Amino acid sequence: MVTRKEVAELAGVSEATVSRVFNGLGPMKPTTKARVLEAASQLNYHPNAIAQSFARRRSGNLGVVLPYMPKVHLFSAYYFAEILSGIGEQVREQGYDMLLSLLKPDEDLDYARLYRSQKVDACVILGARDTPQQRESLQQLQEQGYPFCLVNQHFEGLAFHEVDADHVDGSYQAVRHLQEEGYRKIAFLNGSPEYSNSEDRLQGYLRAMHDAGLQTSHELLLEGNYSRKSGYEAAERLWSQREQVEAVFAANDRMAIGLMQGLREKGWVAGRDFAVVGCDDSDAAKLSDPPLSSINVPFYEMGKEAARGVLARFTQGERAEPSNVKLPTQLIIRQSSKSSSLT
Amino acid sequence: MVTRKEVAELAGVSEATVSRVFNGLGPMKPTTKARVLEAASQLNYHPNAIAQSFARRRSGNLGVVLPYMPKVHLFSAYYFAEILSGIGEQVREQGYDMLLSLLKPDEDLDYARLYRSQKVDACVILGARDTPQQRESLQQLQEQGYPFCLVNQHFEGLAFHEVDADHVDGSYQAVRHLQEEGYRKIAFLNGSPEYSNSEDRLQGYLRAMHDAGLQTSHELLLEGNYSRKSGYEAAERLWSQREQVEAVFAANDRMAIGLMQGLREKGWVAGRDFAVVGCDDSDAAKLSDPPLSSINVPFYEMGKEAARGVLARFTQGERAEPSNVKLPTQLIIRQSSKSSSLT
Repeated sequence: MVTRKEVAELAGVSEATVSRVFNGLGPMKPTTKARVLEAASQLNYHPNAIAQSFARRRSGNLGVVLPYMPKVHLFSAYYFAEILSGIGEQVREQGYDMLLSLLKPDEDLDYARLYRSQKVDACVILGARDTPQQRESLQQLQEQGYPFCLVNQHFEGLAFHEVDADHVDGSYQAVRHLQEEGYRKIAFLNGSPEYSNSEDRLQGYLRAMHDAGLQTSHELLLEGNYSRKSGYEAAERLWSQREQVEAVFAANDRMAIGLMQGLREKGWVAGRDFAVVGCDDSDAAKLSDPPLSSINVPFYEMGKEAARGVLARFTQGERAEPSNVKLPTQLIIRQSSKSSSLT
Repeated sequence: MVTRKEVAELAGVSEATVSRVFNGLGPMKPTTKARVLEAASQLNYHPNAIAQSFARRRSGNLGVVLPYMPKVHLFSAYYFAEILSGIGEQVREQGYDMLLSLLKPDEDLDYARLYRSQKVDACVILGARDTPQQRESLQQLQEQGYPFCLVNQHFEGLAFHEVDADHVDGSYQAVRHLQEEGYRKIAFLNGSPEYSNSEDRLQGYLRAMHDAGLQTSHELLLEGNYSRKSGYEAAERLWSQREQVEAVFAANDRMAIGLMQGLREKGWVAGRDFAVVGCDDSDAAKLSDPPLSSINVPFYEMGKEAARGVLARFTQGERAEPSNVKLPTQLIIRQSSKSSSLT
């Protein structure tokens, strides 16, 4: 294999100059550059791709991949807004900019494009779902050695750099709290199953029901898609089987609020006729009527930690070892779930 | 002056190839590139800087400059979230990514850095304030011919590419509505004066009071800083002069909500003991207790229009002519301002 040294000798320059030409670094006389390229061409020299990638110019950008959904006001969702705020705080501290890329979940997930085009040094990937295509894309990215971090999503059987929250325990706390308030018929309104936190929350729910010796049945398990509308629609089904239900744990606040709105139209008021606990502890939970009990998830801290971790990997130039950070969740009790507020 | 044609002839390539070498475009044989660089060097050829800048490689990024405030969850503010959602929708439609740069309002505002380093093709600037430094930075950017657009901010005496909302009219509608509900002692809780929309809203308030033949006095004019906390603090002052006030128009929802919370602690309930109209028509306005009347500002559409306009300038390569787009605002009436809901 032709070496950098041979190219340098033929071109009559230093080895460092050869590197600078192939890494596009610094100002350089056109004549010098031309001599190096000529020599490289004559010798059929190709710099080692991996070595080159470590020496490449920093973009100074942390990439953030977000799921694109037409007309959805993505940044107005508490979940994304908080994670982005945490990432923003961290990149700012480290002197980075953020490069946001909106990708349709069903389109070609060519994450490597962002690195190859030197748009980013590292990536945080938000809103990933467990699909065969997504698994394939992430495995490729990992094999290529590009540093990335997933937030709030893990993949059964695959080990990536991940920052997550303890959703199993959060669910457990929520259901336990409803039990302590005296409820036994507790339904669970979950979100879409391709998110790992939906699976985590289901586990927490089932464990808490099991530990309390309570039955779970098909009727108690409802599914929405994390939108307010899907919670509103679940109210219809819940109403049709209201004899079987005293309380509901919803996998996010938006669905919980939609559910409360739907049931209020039937005459059932949360915190009076039934109890609800949501999840996320969003601003909406504090402002809803009645104020909504919820599981606090430290999204801001998760974003901050993901950015910190993935930039450390890039800066240190280390081959990414899978690691999993899991931050704690916490029950916040408000009016919507207190049996004492029931008349 | 040496021309591209002469370089092409000496190197034995087409003129297009010479351009491609100097603009770093496309794949190219190292030998061809070396020949062109050698020829250019011999002839002392320097491509025209302006022509080159128009032909330069697209970064494919739209820059978005945001004000950095430590620990503030910026993306969770309805205002920024909505504008960013609109920008995101537009860049996605045009196949762009977004490059977010968080700049401290008091640090060196070297916007040109983003263009020079080819991080962005054009910029949308959010949260700009009217300070001498900001004026200077923006004038420089304009003189250098870099395309940028301001959202929700204009500068008296300077003409930039701006997308704004009709805040004068929004204020006028709010105060007019309170008058129609029978209120005559109407206070105005404004935000920080270095934002042009604060000045605009003050104008609208004064005009509506004047048109109705109502007195405005020093006591009726309060100032916060657009935070909930500053609204909460204004409640103290308002309470001390409650004989002089029947209704309040607040320059954003967060201050209105803080004000309602502060006055509720004194025993004064909005929509019962006094009337309030906010501004922004945020999610919080719909969820607050009582639901808050507010001026709808089309932030999402403003973001979309700013991105569209500034990318058109970049794509068309035209020298930016100042232009001002002003979108309409609209009063949304809810319980907080209805006199019929007063007991």
